Amino acid sequence: MTIRVGVIGTGVIGTDHAAKLQHQISGSTVSAVTDIDRARASQVAADLGGARVFGDGHELIASDEVDAVLITSIGETHAEFTLASLAAGKPVMCEKPLAPTTPECEQILDAEVALGRRLVIVGFMRRYDAGYRQVKASLDSGAVGDALILHNVHRDTGAPESFTDPMVLTDSMIHEIDVTRWLLGEEIVSVQIIPPKRTRHAFAHLQDPQFAAFHTESGILSTAEFLANGTYGYDVRCELVGSDGTASLLNPTLANEVTGGVARTVVPADWRARFSGAYAAELQAWIGGLERGEIVGPSAWEGYAATRVTELGIEAIRSGQRVVIDYVDKPALYR
Amino acid sequence: MTIRVGVIGTGVIGTDHAAKLQHQISGSTVSAVTDIDRARASQVAADLGGARVFGDGHELIASDEVDAVLITSIGETHAEFTLASLAAGKPVMCEKPLAPTTPECEQILDAEVALGRRLVIVGFMRRYDAGYRQVKASLDSGAVGDALILHNVHRDTGAPESFTDPMVLTDSMIHEIDVTRWLLGEEIVSVQIIPPKRTRHAFAHLQDPQFAAFHTESGILSTAEFLANGTYGYDVRCELVGSDGTASLLNPTLANEVTGGVARTVVPADWRARFSGAYAAELQAWIGGLERGEIVGPSAWEGYAATRVTELGIEAIRSGQRVVIDYVDKPALYR
Amino acid sequence: MTIRVGVIGTGVIGTDHAAKLQHQISGSTVSAVTDIDRARASQVAADLGGARVFGDGHELIASDEVDAVLITSIGETHAEFTLASLAAGKPVMCEKPLAPTTPECEQILDAEVALGRRLVIVGFMRRYDAGYRQVKASLDSGAVGDALILHNVHRDTGAPESFTDPMVLTDSMIHEIDVTRWLLGEEIVSVQIIPPKRTRHAFAHLQDPQFAAFHTESGILSTAEFLANGTYGYDVRCELVGSDGTASLLNPTLANEVTGGVARTVVPADWRARFSGAYAAELQAWIGGLERGEIVGPSAWEGYAATRVTELGIEAIRSGQRVVIDYVDKPALYR
Amino acid sequence: MTIRVGVIGTGVIGTDHAAKLQHQISGSTVSAVTDIDRARASQVAADLGGARVFGDGHELIASDEVDAVLITSIGETHAEFTLASLAAGKPVMCEKPLAPTTPECEQILDAEVALGRRLVIVGFMRRYDAGYRQVKASLDSGAVGDALILHNVHRDTGAPESFTDPMVLTDSMIHEIDVTRWLLGEEIVSVQIIPPKRTRHAFAHLQDPQFAAFHTESGILSTAEFLANGTYGYDVRCELVGSDGTASLLNPTLANEVTGGVARTVVPADWRARFSGAYAAELQAWIGGLERGEIVGPSAWEGYAATRVTELGIEAIRSGQRVVIDYVDKPALYR
Repeated sequence: MTIRVGVIGTGVIGTDHAAKLQHQISGSTVSAVTDIDRARASQVAADLGGARVFGDGHELIASDEVDAVLITSIGETHAEFTLASLAAGKPVMCEKPLAPTTPECEQILDAEVALGRRLVIVGFMRRYDAGYRQVKASLDSGAVGDALILHNVHRDTGAPESFTDPMVLTDSMIHEIDVTRWLLGEEIVSVQIIPPKRTRHAFAHLQDPQFAAFHTESGILSTAEFLANGTYGYDVRCELVGSDGTASLLNPTLANEVTGGVARTVVPADWRARFSGAYAAELQAWIGGLERGEIVGPSAWEGYAATRVTELGIEAIRSGQRVVIDYVDKPALYR
Repeated sequence: MTIRVGVIGTGVIGTDHAAKLQHQISGSTVSAVTDIDRARASQVAADLGGARVFGDGHELIASDEVDAVLITSIGETHAEFTLASLAAGKPVMCEKPLAPTTPECEQILDAEVALGRRLVIVGFMRRYDAGYRQVKASLDSGAVGDALILHNVHRDTGAPESFTDPMVLTDSMIHEIDVTRWLLGEEIVSVQIIPPKRTRHAFAHLQDPQFAAFHTESGILSTAEFLANGTYGYDVRCELVGSDGTASLLNPTLANEVTGGVARTVVPADWRARFSGAYAAELQAWIGGLERGEIVGPSAWEGYAATRVTELGIEAIRSGQRVVIDYVDKPALYR
Repeated sequence: MTIRVGVIGTGVIGTDHAAKLQHQISGSTVSAVTDIDRARASQVAADLGGARVFGDGHELIASDEVDAVLITSIGETHAEFTLASLAAGKPVMCEKPLAPTTPECEQILDAEVALGRRLVIVGFMRRYDAGYRQVKASLDSGAVGDALILHNVHRDTGAPESFTDPMVLTDSMIHEIDVTRWLLGEEIVSVQIIPPKRTRHAFAHLQDPQFAAFHTESGILSTAEFLANGTYGYDVRCELVGSDGTASLLNPTLANEVTGGVARTVVPADWRARFSGAYAAELQAWIGGLERGEIVGPSAWEGYAATRVTELGIEAIRSGQRVVIDYVDKPALYR
Repeated sequence: MTIRVGVIGTGVIGTDHAAKLQHQISGSTVSAVTDIDRARASQVAADLGGARVFGDGHELIASDEVDAVLITSIGETHAEFTLASLAAGKPVMCEKPLAPTTPECEQILDAEVALGRRLVIVGFMRRYDAGYRQVKASLDSGAVGDALILHNVHRDTGAPESFTDPMVLTDSMIHEIDVTRWLLGEEIVSVQIIPPKRTRHAFAHLQDPQFAAFHTESGILSTAEFLANGTYGYDVRCELVGSDGTASLLNPTLANEVTGGVARTVVPADWRARFSGAYAAELQAWIGGLERGEIVGPSAWEGYAATRVTELGIEAIRSGQRVVIDYVDKPALYR
């Protein structure tokens, strides 16, 4: 029984996911694609070897050739298509963010709760990264004692002029927010933004790098440094400081090269080089679950909670002050 | 078009490969299995969700439910089933060694040459390991200059009493032999065996560790240390020494843990932990190729050449002297 | 010409420095010691092979057997003995802090300015650590571009009950404060304290770990995490994030050990294991300078500026707010 | 009581040692120098601040301004000056080799035995390297079990045309020979030389790299790769393989730099960068011992045994065969 996935949004990440579902994941094919750029969708469909091209996401969701939906369109459309998938009773994987605003996220929570069963997962792929899982295993084993501090760094190689201060939170730090919640198993209760000196490689309107200090329910401090225009590589690491030791995510190292007085290891060139394995594991877990009739992956609640933190983080950029974070009650479906 | 694979031999590695083909590789299912232990085969078939169980490899190869054959039975049976697959005109992947003796390997070369096209690949999975590929990329880029020496170490966590001195070559060092040929792009022309002190953890009959010095056509020295009863972990590394630098395969490192005055990284526990990704990549490359009508993977010639070196390596154990290695002429099919 | 050093304060660090000056540094002997615990001073004098024991620091400073003074008594006495050394016209090395309060530091600045030449150096030994110097060389070479952020961690293995929240700044983070100033070549202009979750290994009165966010004149963010009761080792590292790359101080690694599935490197056990080489280099630079008639080492201004930051950092602990830091005018003597 | 050292031979290493004894080692000055190039000796004397220049080594040894002798002249002169120092009853440190031939070494053994007490030490500085000592501590602690194999690599950045095949053993691999004996606590009983492919960076007469396989009394295999014209850096490492684990000497790492997609650590530029600390520790141990009336350092026997191995190693280059190594009886003085 092959799961036929319909992909809404064939930009860079949608195309990448579609190729994985077609050529690398066991148990899935891509049966349908759509994009606001129809030519682009047609090209991707052809590259995949003949997926059907739909005029919009709603037609795709409605098609009886689509067993499950993957949403990789721009964030503003996520809620609309997630809600439509729920209405159609079809499993849906939505790339982060679940939605850019919490009212939209709450609508999704409400719809899923009304349905009475989970259909939605959110694409927080770092939970599937082998390195992050080692860090979590160190913590869960008790080896490093109680978590006290989590230091996160997240550096990218460049950002377009369209990248804005709020997007630092909604598009980038949302990963550190999810990692904090997932690794530590606690909600984030406050956020403060502390801007560093700006790099000369960023457009003038952007505070780059940016630095955030989050606190969780039990008082753990989670710091996050994000640098959009790091130029030197895609560098994602963290150090979890416990009462009895530390556990750190390193850049994966497989080999080195020594020439000219220097020993070199490679820093990932971009998110694909770094997290391709995590994306594949996430997709395989989702598809494997669907084959067994299960929904495997971060829930809509995880998506809501992350968006809630980004929303108040944007307020914290403006105020310069520590902002306290509150949440709607967590429905029983997500406990 | 799903490739239906029949698996001959459902021991540890056969079961592992079968699970990958069924659950992890895009484009394949396992339609048939067989094993001299029929109960074992039946159990594996059931675990896979309903593959057909055949009485022996020949029946399996003949079945029209089998598009391609995977041979993971004991080495002594490899030639027989590879030849049968060739006779049936079916693609076949044979785990290493292609065969334990060169007369058998030569029969396979002859049969494939007579057929006029390649159907056989041999399971030298290290060629698909991301770390080894980085080392090869360093060499191929010219960054480290001309290859002069290759140092290999290969340590395992234990061996049963049935493990013998010849098997050090045919079962274990065969990987270093293939890596040497593949990385350096040259045939091996001599071998000398230089026994170190024996570990107290090995059975008395076994020279463990063992050490070999190979030379290639242009004079490159490739050393290989193998330790069957290393006890501390599965440790496979190499250092390629070039005229302008070195390139080294390291144990993959993703994270570390610091407690009690010590920073720790994990050494792989066994070959599955270390090479699971390489096996998956090898199988995916094979299946992906079959989907396109191509044979992708190390050829029967690679299998023959490696067996030739192990055969004369066994002679070198006995003589204690450097043994020169000659080969049959390389058929045009493999050039 | 051997420099005869008088050591005021023969506690742990004074004894350690005295042994270095006597047995490890070229060009110095310890001719005199004193301590409020006279028995302790006598024991140290005997261990050194016969230094003279003085009743107090003033007698020692006055002695014509003392060419230079080393102050390793408790911080509250530093200003008194530094001023006395200045009055006696003798070179003096004062362990950090120069003094716990800025009025005392300013007195020293005034006295030295009045004298018209430098005699005082302050024991910021990290400036002599080979690793920190590599980081500074990376920055100064331009390789990593403009400094944007400096992340510091400083973890110790335990603290006595007498250790207090202000001492986190005056005794421990003062090193990160000096490193920030020295590495970046800028004064610190603000400080905010952001407390993480407390470790169960600390006495209840102590906020441990502690976290500080400093900004420098050009807006560089320097963060400092200090953990007094880290238990697992003495762990001092930093990462300098530049516009074009990063430079990191690592724990020194010379060798590793692999057993039981784990590759291990050692984390320093305490400050002596970690910074013994830096202390020796600092003392050798000081003594070598004195042999040539020069004063080599961090100036009284460096001591004042660091104390100024700790002083306002203590205020920042109380307020929870970002505190702006101002300084007296920098005398020409220190430019 | 300052030890006044006379230095015979003011080439690169003699000048380096002299500067250490004068400016970096506690308890010593350089009172006298001599060299076959008298102008060079005069320049070094002046740089040191006024050592006396002698016409030859014998005059220097005889001078009552010389308490101890350091021999850093060419190897062919070592025996002559060591014997003269013994005749004068003065402590002497001789750089490796003790002498290039065993008859000379045996003369020294005989003279010292006749004297009835040790005065000679040999400059095997690696025994004082902190990394090598960590490896030895791992072995001595029992953590890695019984030693089975020792892999050594030793790569340099270039060699002059005057460098010959025998010098690979007498000047370079003599360090690995001493390390093997010292780390393992056993004599070497055989040697085989196995030449790899030659680098294009060496002069045509030189087999570069070179590879040796030594066996010790209990059968431990010690391999040594030496590359004179490695070009990329000065790279000295080893891996000790035990029955229960391994211990490895790494290149010292203090910091890293990440730019342009690559994380870099420095490889030492030359022997001074790598072993400056070991040389200082060796000299300080020697001088500290002399202050206490003791002779601290590798004995003349260690020098003899190493030369014996190099001598038969040269025979092994010629024969291509494994050569068995025998020794004179070890005098009671060295047990």
